[in-house]
Amino acid sequence: MKLVIVGGVAGGASAAARARRLDESAEIILLERGPDVSFANCGMPYYIGQQIVDRKRLLVVTPERLRERLNLDVRPQTEAIAIDRAKKQLRVRNLANDEEYDLTYDKLILAPGASPFRPAVPGFDLLRVMTLRNLSDMDRIAAASSAAKHVVVMGAGFIGLEMIENLVHRGISCTLVQNQSQVLSPLDAEMTTPLAEELVKRGVDLALSDSATSIETVESTGRMRVQLQSGREVETDLVVVGIGVRPENQLAIAAGLALGDRGGIAVNEAMQTSDPDIYAVGDVVETRDVVSGVKQLMPLAGPANRQGRIAADHLFGRPAKFRGTQATAIVGLWKLTAAMTGLSEKVCRLRNIPFCAVYIHPAHHATYYPGAEPMSLKVLFDPTSGRILGAQGVGGAGVDKRIDILSIAIQSKMTVFDLEEAELCYAPQFGSAKDPINMVGFVAAGMLRGDHPQIDVRELLAMDPSVRPLVLDVRTSEEFAAGHLPGAISISVDQLRGRLSELDPTRKIAAYCQVGQRGYFATRILLQHGFDVVNVSGGYKTYLLHFPAGYSANAS
Amino acid sequence: MKLVIVGGVAGGASAAARARRLDESAEIILLERGPDVSFANCGMPYYIGQQIVDRKRLLVVTPERLRERLNLDVRPQTEAIAIDRAKKQLRVRNLANDEEYDLTYDKLILAPGASPFRPAVPGFDLLRVMTLRNLSDMDRIAAASSAAKHVVVMGAGFIGLEMIENLVHRGISCTLVQNQSQVLSPLDAEMTTPLAEELVKRGVDLALSDSATSIETVESTGRMRVQLQSGREVETDLVVVGIGVRPENQLAIAAGLALGDRGGIAVNEAMQTSDPDIYAVGDVVETRDVVSGVKQLMPLAGPANRQGRIAADHLFGRPAKFRGTQATAIVGLWKLTAAMTGLSEKVCRLRNIPFCAVYIHPAHHATYYPGAEPMSLKVLFDPTSGRILGAQGVGGAGVDKRIDILSIAIQSKMTVFDLEEAELCYAPQFGSAKDPINMVGFVAAGMLRGDHPQIDVRELLAMDPSVRPLVLDVRTSEEFAAGHLPGAISISVDQLRGRLSELDPTRKIAAYCQVGQRGYFATRILLQHGFDVVNVSGGYKTYLLHFPAGYSANAS
Repeated sequence: MKLVIVGGVAGGASAAARARRLDESAEIILLERGPDVSFANCGMPYYIGQQIVDRKRLLVVTPERLRERLNLDVRPQTEAIAIDRAKKQLRVRNLANDEEYDLTYDKLILAPGASPFRPAVPGFDLLRVMTLRNLSDMDRIAAASSAAKHVVVMGAGFIGLEMIENLVHRGISCTLVQNQSQVLSPLDAEMTTPLAEELVKRGVDLALSDSATSIETVESTGRMRVQLQSGREVETDLVVVGIGVRPENQLAIAAGLALGDRGGIAVNEAMQTSDPDIYAVGDVVETRDVVSGVKQLMPLAGPANRQGRIAADHLFGRPAKFRGTQATAIVGLWKLTAAMTGLSEKVCRLRNIPFCAVYIHPAHHATYYPGAEPMSLKVLFDPTSGRILGAQGVGGAGVDKRIDILSIAIQSKMTVFDLEEAELCYAPQFGSAKDPINMVGFVAAGMLRGDHPQIDVRELLAMDPSVRPLVLDVRTSEEFAAGHLPGAISISVDQLRGRLSELDPTRKIAAYCQVGQRGYFATRILLQHGFDVVNVSGGYKTYLLHFPAGYSANAS
Repeated sequence: MKLVIVGGVAGGASAAARARRLDESAEIILLERGPDVSFANCGMPYYIGQQIVDRKRLLVVTPERLRERLNLDVRPQTEAIAIDRAKKQLRVRNLANDEEYDLTYDKLILAPGASPFRPAVPGFDLLRVMTLRNLSDMDRIAAASSAAKHVVVMGAGFIGLEMIENLVHRGISCTLVQNQSQVLSPLDAEMTTPLAEELVKRGVDLALSDSATSIETVESTGRMRVQLQSGREVETDLVVVGIGVRPENQLAIAAGLALGDRGGIAVNEAMQTSDPDIYAVGDVVETRDVVSGVKQLMPLAGPANRQGRIAADHLFGRPAKFRGTQATAIVGLWKLTAAMTGLSEKVCRLRNIPFCAVYIHPAHHATYYPGAEPMSLKVLFDPTSGRILGAQGVGGAGVDKRIDILSIAIQSKMTVFDLEEAELCYAPQFGSAKDPINMVGFVAAGMLRGDHPQIDVRELLAMDPSVRPLVLDVRTSEEFAAGHLPGAISISVDQLRGRLSELDPTRKIAAYCQVGQRGYFATRILLQHGFDVVNVSGGYKTYLLHFPAGYSANAS
C-alpha cells in the first residue's frame, strides 16, 4: 500500500498516524505545503497575544518526530499541483527549490484545508493586511503587532474575537469591523449581546453592520486608512482579516472530483470522494449536519481529526463511518465563554425546521457558595417529540460543560424529558442539585406538556398594542422600578393570590420576572384561577439580550 | 386534596413546591422536625470552614417564603410520630411545646431523610463528638472548631473529606480516621491515591485501615483521648463523625410499610410505598441502580429533588416515573476534584458484572495553552457491547465536565464507540481537538476491536515471574531512569523498529509508557511484526496510582 496524503495539519496528520498504526509496512507519504506539520493552529492568536510565550509549544509534532515515531515520509514545503487519476499519480512541487516530480499512489487522501477569504476590495493586497492560517502568518502578525498602536480586525467570528482579545491583551487599540449586526454569527443574535457588551467595555471600537470598502496607505504617516461602508475612516497600523475561509478545492476541481453545493469536496460516510481511491477530510469537505441532515462546510479541528482517522480505517478495509458534524464550537473572550452545538434559531428558520426555544439564566454552581458566575442558555427542541435540536450558551465558568453535555445529548438523540432526569455531579463548587441542564429540561418539558405556556419576548413586543396581552411584571416593586418591559404593570408573585381581583379575567396575560422562574410560578397560579396566561420565556434578562441598553450598534 | 409531607429539606420541599404548582387549591402541610426547611446542607462544611461567611445564604427558602409564595402550611419543629394508615391520619408532635395532635391526609409523602450513623462505641455519646446533619449541628461544630487546636474526623467519605478541607482551611490540625485502606470508598482504591497524597501533603494525619474503639475525656486537660484499633491514641478537642447515614425508617416500619433489603423504604417507579396513598422520597428510600438494576440506598441531593417532583406529579394523576439513580457524585478537596458515575470496578466484581476498564491521564485542555491541569480517568464498559458502565475521575479542573458527560452517556446507554465520535467544544482553554472523552473512546474501542490488547498492571505484576511477559518500557531512557516497573527493560518507542532483533519473538511482551499512548504505538508496531504483545493500561501513571510511593498506608 502506497498512501499519499496532501496536507499535514489536523485531518492529514491524523490520517497518517492512524494509517501507520494499522499497517507497519505501508509506504506513507505526507505532503505539506507549509514548513510545519500538525501545528496547533487554534493556539496562534494566543501566541500573538503573548499568552503562549514559547513558540515551540505550538509545534505539536515536528516532521522529524513523525519520521522517527511513525516512519512517515514527511515532505514539508511540498505542494500537490495536479492529480492524474487515470495514472493514480500526483504532480508535486518542492517549494524550496521549485523542482517538480510525479508521485504515484494506491490511495490518496486530500486534506488541504481551507484558505482565508480575501474580498476583492482595493487595498486588501497590501502587505500589512494579513490573514492567519499558519505559523508564518502568525509570526508576521506578531511582528507587526509589536510596532502597532492600532489594529483593525475585519470579521467578528471565532478567530476575529480571539484576535481582538489578544491584541487588547497586548495593549493595542482595536477596531472590530463586522458586516453583520451581531458578532459571532453562528450564534443567534441575542446570545451574542454579552460578547458585544464586553468588547465595548474593554474599549474595542465595535463597528457592526459595517465593512471595508478600501484600504490605502497614508503616505505622510506610513499608516493605512481603512474606508468603511458607513462612511467612517479608520487610521491603523495593521489589518487582520478573519471573514471566513474557503475550501481549498482547486486540486479536486482540476481532477474532476465531485463538489457539493457549498464548494467543498463531496464525500460519502467513509470520506471517499467520487473517486473511490481518493479520500478527502477536514475543512475541504462537506459533511452532513447530524441534526438537519443538510450537507455543509464545518471547518472544525475535532471533526477533521476524526475524519482523518476514519478515512485511514476505511482505506485499510475496515468498516468506518463518519456520523457527521453538529457545529459544536466555543470561544473564550476574556472571562466570557460563548459556545454552541446543533442548530441555531436562525438555521431552523432558514430551513423551515419547526422548533421551540427556551432560555434560562442560571448560575454555574450553587449561589450560596462563593464565586458563582452567571450564564445564559438557549436550547432549541422539536415541538412534537422534544428532541434536542441545538443549544447556545454565553457566560462565565461552566458554559463549556453545559454545551458539551447538550452536545452528547444531541448525539444520542435525547429529548428535553431526558434532561429533566439527568443525574449530574453536584457539590456546591461544581453545580446545583437542580443543574442548569435539569432546569432546561423542566422549562422545556413544561412547555410541551402544556403546564407552562411561554411566549417569546420579541413576539410579545411586536404585537399590536390593541391585541397585546397585559404585560404583568411579577418581580418585586424594587426590581420593577429599576427597569421593566414597555407597558408592564407590577404585582409581585408573592402578592398575586391576594390581588387576582385587580386583573381583568377576560384579558390574556403575559407574566414575566427576572429569569423566568417566578414568571412560571405566577403562570401556574393564574392558569389555575382561569386566566389565559403565558410566561415570557427567560424573563427580563432575555429581554435585555434582545434589546440591549449597553451598546448601540446591535439593537435588532 | 389534603397532602401532608413529612420532611422539609430536599425531597420534601421539592414535592411541596411541585404539588402547589399542580394544584392551587390543595391543602399542603409540610412538617419538618428541625427549625429550618430547604436549607443548603451541602454547604454546611464550607460554612464551618468560613468559606461561606453569611449563614443566611444557606437558608435556600425560609418557612415564611414558602407560606407566602407557595401558600404552604409549613410547620417547623414538628415531628411525625405515628401513621394510622387505616384512618389516613398522622400523629404529630410540636417540639416547641411538646403538644401532640392528629392530622388527616388524602396523600402522604415521607421525606424524613437519613440520620448520621453513630457506632456503639464507648464515648461516642460525648458532647464534643458531633455529627453534621442540619444547621444546628453545623453551628455546634463551628463553635467547637473555633476553640479547637485539633480535630479528629471519623470517616473519609464525601462529608469527611469536605470537613477535613474546611478544618485545615481554618488552620486546625486534623486526624482523619478511616476504617478502610482507602479514602472515599465509593471510588476504586487506586483512583483515590491522589486524594490521600494531597491529604498527607496538607499535613493531615491520615489513619487508614483504622477505627476508634473508645473516646474518653481527659480530666487533666479537658480534651478527649481517642483510642484507635491500631493502638494509637490521639488527643483532640473535637470529634466529627461522618461514617455514613441510615435511612430514617422508624415511622415507616411502625406503620407496616415494606422495606427493601438495605433498610430503605421500598417504592415503585412512581415513588409509591406499599401503601399507594403514601409516597416516600429522598435518602429514606431504596432506588434502582440504572446500570446494574440492583436496588440500593443512594443519599444524593439531585435524585431526592427529582423524586419529590415525581411523587407530586404522580399523586395528582400524572404519568411520572423515576428512572433510578446512577451514583453520580463529586467532591472537591482543595484544588483536587474526585467524581464518579455508574458502577465502580469493586461493585462490578461484587456483583459479578463482566467489565473491561481503561485508564487515561490527559490534561484538561490543550497542553500548549497555559494552565493545563492533569487528571486521571477510569472508565468501565461492557466487554461485549461496549456499553459504558461507569466512570471515575480525579485531578484538577475539568474532571466534573468529563464525569457529567459520561453520566449523560450512561443515561442514554452509549457505548465506547459513541465516545470516539463525540463532538465536544474545543478551543485551547477548554479542551483538546481529541478531548479526553474521545481518548477514552479510542482506547476502549481499540481494546474491543482487538487493535489494542491491554493488561491491567495489577494482573501483570501478580503473575509468577516464570510466566510473566517481558515488561518493556518504551519511554525515553531518562524517564526509565527516573523510575520504572519492576523487572522492566528499556527500548524507547522511537527506536523500537530498529531494535526489534533484541526481542525474543517467542516471549510475550507487556509494553508500557507514561500514560498509555506510546505503549499503544509500540503495541501496534510489535503486533504487526508478529509479537504477542499487550499494552499496560494507563502506563506508569496507573502503576503509581495502584502502588503509590508518596504515602504508606494505602499500598494495596
